[in-house]
Amino acid sequence: MRIYEDGDIFIEREASEIPWVKIFTHEPYKELTDAPADIRAKLWRVYEITEKEMLEYYSPKKINMASFGNYLPHLHIHVMARFEDDSFFPEPMWGKKQRESILELPSFEEFAKRLYERLTKEL
Amino acid sequence: MRIYEDGDIFIEREASEIPWVKIFTHEPYKELTDAPADIRAKLWRVYEITEKEMLEYYSPKKINMASFGNYLPHLHIHVMARFEDDSFFPEPMWGKKQRESILELPSFEEFAKRLYERLTKEL
Repeated sequence: MRIYEDGDIFIEREASEIPWVKIFTHEPYKELTDAPADIRAKLWRVYEITEKEMLEYYSPKKINMASFGNYLPHLHIHVMARFEDDSFFPEPMWGKKQRESILELPSFEEFAKRLYERLTKEL
Repeated sequence: MRIYEDGDIFIEREASEIPWVKIFTHEPYKELTDAPADIRAKLWRVYEITEKEMLEYYSPKKINMASFGNYLPHLHIHVMARFEDDSFFPEPMWGKKQRESILELPSFEEFAKRLYERLTKEL
């Protein structure tokens, strides 16, 4: 599911129990500092808008952010909304599972729509 | 071990087999977007300088970056140099251990010294 796209970046949903999106650059840069300054600035700006919308829409316990690319060295930033009763909290989503969890969250489709509108307006 | 410090941020080493540092803001902001714009810009700049020095000094397979704060909600960014034969690669450092590994790496103290000098010069 592609949530947003422009000439520099695109945003996709990661299948998960939690709200989780990945911000990719179109160019397959390996490291963040391989990207030119304007693309890096754009990525941070998109990250910040995404975090803000997640905070406002979901009121999560915490936002988590990560950029690994060990399997696929194509620059992307993970943005995750974490909840005290999600399956892994307080461990990272890559850590040890803490419990069986069924989260009741507002619609992701509505979040995606709001994020799209906000990015379109603020970028 | 405190590697660098100024009025906005400080950098500490994380005890690990891999080169791993954490960039903290002095103010205990919870989320990245809780920090004012100048501190956010500073954090990204410090992140980028740290990544560049890690790449040049260690020639790792990949840089990994993360910001969680689920246990301690005090804004900090993890910067990790990853190697194909480290204990977790290609999993994140929070993932499933892949092998027993003994890495032979250049001195961390020398890396810390170079990072300090670079930050002092470029900031």
